[in-house]
Amino acid sequence: MAMRRAAQQSIQALGSRVSQSKQLHQATPGSKKIVGVFYKAGEYAEKNPNFVGCVERGLGIRDWLESQGHQYIVTDDKEGPNCELEKHIPDLHVLITTPFHPAYVTAERIKKAKNLQLLLTAGIGSDHIDLKAAAGAGLTVAEVTGSNVVSVAEDELMRILILVRNFLPGHHQVIKGEWDVAAIAYRAYDLEGKTIGTVGAGRIGKLLLQRLKPFNCNLLYHDRLKMEPELEQHTGAKFEEDLDAMLPKCDVVVINAPLTEKTRGLFDKQRIAKCKKGVLIVNNARGAIMDTQAVADACASGHIAGYSGDVWNPQPAPKDHPWRYMPNQAMTPHISGTTIDGQLRYAAGVKDMLDRYFKGEDFPPQNYIVKEGMAPIWSGTSNFICESCYAPHNLERKWLRPRLDCGSQCSPRLIRFDLLRVGTH
Amino acid sequence: MAMRRAAQQSIQALGSRVSQSKQLHQATPGSKKIVGVFYKAGEYAEKNPNFVGCVERGLGIRDWLESQGHQYIVTDDKEGPNCELEKHIPDLHVLITTPFHPAYVTAERIKKAKNLQLLLTAGIGSDHIDLKAAAGAGLTVAEVTGSNVVSVAEDELMRILILVRNFLPGHHQVIKGEWDVAAIAYRAYDLEGKTIGTVGAGRIGKLLLQRLKPFNCNLLYHDRLKMEPELEQHTGAKFEEDLDAMLPKCDVVVINAPLTEKTRGLFDKQRIAKCKKGVLIVNNARGAIMDTQAVADACASGHIAGYSGDVWNPQPAPKDHPWRYMPNQAMTPHISGTTIDGQLRYAAGVKDMLDRYFKGEDFPPQNYIVKEGMAPIWSGTSNFICESCYAPHNLERKWLRPRLDCGSQCSPRLIRFDLLRVGTH
Repeated sequence: MAMRRAAQQSIQALGSRVSQSKQLHQATPGSKKIVGVFYKAGEYAEKNPNFVGCVERGLGIRDWLESQGHQYIVTDDKEGPNCELEKHIPDLHVLITTPFHPAYVTAERIKKAKNLQLLLTAGIGSDHIDLKAAAGAGLTVAEVTGSNVVSVAEDELMRILILVRNFLPGHHQVIKGEWDVAAIAYRAYDLEGKTIGTVGAGRIGKLLLQRLKPFNCNLLYHDRLKMEPELEQHTGAKFEEDLDAMLPKCDVVVINAPLTEKTRGLFDKQRIAKCKKGVLIVNNARGAIMDTQAVADACASGHIAGYSGDVWNPQPAPKDHPWRYMPNQAMTPHISGTTIDGQLRYAAGVKDMLDRYFKGEDFPPQNYIVKEGMAPIWSGTSNFICESCYAPHNLERKWLRPRLDCGSQCSPRLIRFDLLRVGTH
Repeated sequence: MAMRRAAQQSIQALGSRVSQSKQLHQATPGSKKIVGVFYKAGEYAEKNPNFVGCVERGLGIRDWLESQGHQYIVTDDKEGPNCELEKHIPDLHVLITTPFHPAYVTAERIKKAKNLQLLLTAGIGSDHIDLKAAAGAGLTVAEVTGSNVVSVAEDELMRILILVRNFLPGHHQVIKGEWDVAAIAYRAYDLEGKTIGTVGAGRIGKLLLQRLKPFNCNLLYHDRLKMEPELEQHTGAKFEEDLDAMLPKCDVVVINAPLTEKTRGLFDKQRIAKCKKGVLIVNNARGAIMDTQAVADACASGHIAGYSGDVWNPQPAPKDHPWRYMPNQAMTPHISGTTIDGQLRYAAGVKDMLDRYFKGEDFPPQNYIVKEGMAPIWSGTSNFICESCYAPHNLERKWLRPRLDCGSQCSPRLIRFDLLRVGTH
């Protein structure tokens, strides 16, 4: 297999891959070693036969893989030089990872993985993969695009309602044996009539806007481009070109942007100050879009009246993460994309891609993050567009090799963060 | 004033009220004594200028009332023979109460309240008023119909999502310094594709169905009559004539029925057993519709996989109420109808009715529970239809005097519970 990759890299250097693509993408004949890294379910594994995303069930594809003569290793042990994953790095062909219990696929691991051809994300996202190294090694990186966009959009609407209606203080009263309606009611509101702004209106943002429609809110969205007129008309959402002009209008701000170098720390002290006093913020995108301490400080001062999300920086959140202790938080661990329904969808998507890989067929195009060392870009822009959050906006899609083809369009840094996808789930 | 009521009762006995209605309904000239009983806000009163539903703000109508020469007493002290309310019973003209901190208007209190003409509910519901006694005394009882139906419908959708997506265990992990995705995920689902059935599709039920539409669920409703075809078509909700035939189909059951003698204890052990194993139940209607212990037992056994609501039996829930301790509960105190938006609406509605009362004008017809001793019934049925939960179904509305006009149509018991309204909020 090392030979195969070396050959692949030579062809790549020639810049004449298109006609070879199908052949290159095909798995070499014979048994493959496939490794999956998932979270452990322990006592919970037996409680639900559809709980396929855990290490105990390994996406439910073991019998299918083994019946075809492939080897399938699953583990949750992914850290340090002596972990189970590390033992298999030298000879695995396919590595399946998940954002919910990420195995970090570093440049070093990619270098050691001489047989590696395919990195699959069970779910959406590739934060945990060094995409530049993967592209440089001619690998294919793919996710199950769309597998949990509905899951996340539903979860966002739940969090909006939990904050607007001040659910948690009431629930805590119940647990503590109390009954004090006033202590809840003085800051409980209806969602109706409020102004909700989404920062990003890609797939998840659009699904959220559709679900918000019957609540009779004022809906705003900030994105780089306007959405399709039909959808804008259907949802009644108004386009806001300037983020800083939208924020002071919003009672609720929802983050639906991917993590890129442009969005990292986007909500720092200054930007939070531009929000309305008493703003509610929902962020199921990525924790690093927020300045952790600035959010905690604004919750303490009351400038942010409520903050809810399932994403943290870092993950898992350490015991002393300030968001665990700030007032009016409605946080959970990273969970919204790994509902049982989401798991069944991404397990089916991974199985489908493995089947295509064995047969030498292309994957659904939207699933590719890196295709045999090439990254998708859209012509007409040098910036990355995340498919899990931003629609392609009808721009022509092209496959380019980072560092080789981009030339003056972008620097390697831009390739890393703006052309390659940093998904949100 | 005692004279006035005596006169009124005499006219009533003659059964010739219609032509007299306007005159009778008019307040006698001069200063009125108006008493309002609300919950105390304490330290929370100053935290929100729109927190008008508390005793400290008294619906924000003091200046307006006093500028017209009326006396306005507000208190939260409503229990026992020496409470503040009791002192004012003998000479008050108008008593304003709320379901969130109910002052029980018993037959005994009505007998003592010789000047009483008008009982207003700040909110919706008259559980706490002895309607038979009020009707017998020729009083008018009215609520602000519709003032918080949106509040309750939104709250129900929030609770559905909290249960379906298994929000609370994740949040408790955050508080306890833990991070265990599997312990949440094994029973977290998307709402999409699930079957939701509402028991009752009146105002709140319909608003809920409209808000559920974009979630792509299978929507069912049980009611005595089918809803308007346009709304059925718009929401895609299917009519289920037989409750026991609907229940086994539902992943989520939402109670949107009023409390009547027919619905009291409707969900007992036998009926809960008819629900799908693992059913989720949301009940913001009335606690007494459920058999308290049967719900707790079914949650303990896992037959009910989650139960959420804001209504209890009794209220306030005592410290040892079993619903505080049962697994997978997402309970709060009775709060969904008293959001700040709801408070502003019912405060405006009470002010409007007082203004009409002073001027001798009729109230909006849907607000009447008892109109000068007469209860509304709809011809063609001997059963009560609650306007806060059941639409009038285009039946002709008539005003009848209980015990006098109903004759063979119904017994006094039916008048009490089926003809007189027992509202849900």
